[in-house]
Amino acid sequence: MEEQKRTDVNTLGEFGLIEHLTKGFENKNESTIYGVGDDAAVIARDGDILTVVSTDMLMEGIHFDLAYTPLKHLGHKAISVNVSDIYAMNAIPEQVTVSIAISNRFSVEALEELYAGIRVACKDYNVDLVGGDTTSSIKGIAISVTAIGKVHKDKITYRNTAKPGDIICITGNVGAAYLGLQLLEREKQIFLENPEVKPDLDDQNYLVGRQLKPTARRDMIILFGKSKIVPTSMIDISDGVASELFHICKQSGVGAILEENGMPLHPKTEEMAFNFKMDPATVALSGGEDYELLFTIKPEDLEIIKYLPDIYISGDIVEKEEGIKLHTKGGNIHDLKAQGWKHFGKE
Amino acid sequence: MEEQKRTDVNTLGEFGLIEHLTKGFENKNESTIYGVGDDAAVIARDGDILTVVSTDMLMEGIHFDLAYTPLKHLGHKAISVNVSDIYAMNAIPEQVTVSIAISNRFSVEALEELYAGIRVACKDYNVDLVGGDTTSSIKGIAISVTAIGKVHKDKITYRNTAKPGDIICITGNVGAAYLGLQLLEREKQIFLENPEVKPDLDDQNYLVGRQLKPTARRDMIILFGKSKIVPTSMIDISDGVASELFHICKQSGVGAILEENGMPLHPKTEEMAFNFKMDPATVALSGGEDYELLFTIKPEDLEIIKYLPDIYISGDIVEKEEGIKLHTKGGNIHDLKAQGWKHFGKE
Repeated sequence: MEEQKRTDVNTLGEFGLIEHLTKGFENKNESTIYGVGDDAAVIARDGDILTVVSTDMLMEGIHFDLAYTPLKHLGHKAISVNVSDIYAMNAIPEQVTVSIAISNRFSVEALEELYAGIRVACKDYNVDLVGGDTTSSIKGIAISVTAIGKVHKDKITYRNTAKPGDIICITGNVGAAYLGLQLLEREKQIFLENPEVKPDLDDQNYLVGRQLKPTARRDMIILFGKSKIVPTSMIDISDGVASELFHICKQSGVGAILEENGMPLHPKTEEMAFNFKMDPATVALSGGEDYELLFTIKPEDLEIIKYLPDIYISGDIVEKEEGIKLHTKGGNIHDLKAQGWKHFGKE
Repeated sequence: MEEQKRTDVNTLGEFGLIEHLTKGFENKNESTIYGVGDDAAVIARDGDILTVVSTDMLMEGIHFDLAYTPLKHLGHKAISVNVSDIYAMNAIPEQVTVSIAISNRFSVEALEELYAGIRVACKDYNVDLVGGDTTSSIKGIAISVTAIGKVHKDKITYRNTAKPGDIICITGNVGAAYLGLQLLEREKQIFLENPEVKPDLDDQNYLVGRQLKPTARRDMIILFGKSKIVPTSMIDISDGVASELFHICKQSGVGAILEENGMPLHPKTEEMAFNFKMDPATVALSGGEDYELLFTIKPEDLEIIKYLPDIYISGDIVEKEEGIKLHTKGGNIHDLKAQGWKHFGKE
């Protein structure tokens, strides 16, 4: 008897898997401007305004651990990570839908907490909750959010449009959310081993806050509009700087030289990296969930960008043949490594 | 010590829960025309065309049982139930996003099967797959689909706009999907008790097919357009005729008299109801997942509607004070009961 072929999902990687599964789907509607492959899909309206749509699913035990994630923060984060994808198209989100699957382990009061966070996020990002679904699960909680935004067709910013000569920029600072997660995991272990010990995270509000309540960069999109800057490409940093830069380079057909000196690190991030005996640069490059923006600009826009707050010049886009390299503080140049891939859970 | 209040989610019911959680969310964007409370949300474009958005989450063990649901059918159904919500707004879906969370129990080949069904559905309904998310779960599979469609502002059909004097119509036939599920559950029990017995469902292709591969009524929306009919209200039948009629009546502030004689039943449905010792009328009224359309028309449109195929006249909208009644075959009139509520699973 012939055995049925069984390929483990981990062999393809998350992005390879999506690509593999959606290969051969052909778009048939004129209104479909851009489908799978960017931070959000793009749909034509009647005039010059485009609709952008992004969706994300958060699963308990994979994306969050309720042992240290307050439900209010979780609700806020679920909205933040989705509107972040809309901002990454240089668009402004206006609506969200939220679907939640829960087991009866969760009370109405628990859901009220979750929705309190969703409510604050809707206010923070000025988006309207317009729909959703509340259903049951056998185990745990699953949250699916879809965000819908709009942008003028001359301002939309894709991943696949970076050009050699463009300058790489990063907003805010990176690596903090990753270290926040390490801190929370460490305190959880200590608690599990000795429930008498009270968690001591008071000094680490900044790092823990970056993990539990990230802020999507609405302010940057407004700043770009005011400064008349349209990035040549953009992506939000969910999987880490290196991984996101790989997406831009692969999809744009270009190479890059990233400056280790150009990685914006918060003092708390540097301090904690040393504390954990980690290299701060590695934390900055591979730590995910900062929800900052990685984007490229035309060289002539540098004069404007360098006077804008909270934007850091981090490298250059080069020809594809030159590869994707890291220029270290020590002056060496070597291949950049991306480690953004998370494994599928075992059942 | 004061004990924290804990209200079980089942006390509010699914619709009560959504209402409770989204109460006090205020819409701030001009483009938000209609939010929570109908089959889909409605968003303004620039001209007279509106965007409608609907989202649904399907959870393994709650919405489907992989013991008897082929993954290809599951993929098709996930799309069907969502585009059905778009049709229920008298709109045409054009795009879908699909997010899937899976544990590593599922192979790439299994996902290919699922996507094969999604692909067929996209073709059947002429929609483009424009985005999504593939992520891990600790256990089981979760599917979240968002559908996006469009409709002219003069044709959009809400739930809350039925008026006394309007005529109630139902497309296709109802109750079949529910009996299909009963058949599948029965065969599953027989199999669990004696794995040697082969399932015998060959005679029941129709009923089982209605459960496993429902068809959303794209054809009806096209027919309405050609016949220049705009229903005065509409909803798709996912929870059962009675439950859907309650939504229309409650949201429109009207009553209704439903004719038991006006419940369209397939001969196979009647036969199998008797076989299961169930009342066919109860099956028709309370059985869910048919994904047919329940709608109301102005009395003057009756002359057009009655010559259209596969549409059944099923009752009348009356003043709110008259209540929501069932006129039985025996000539009695009594209160209609809705039993569309499913309990949240125990963990």
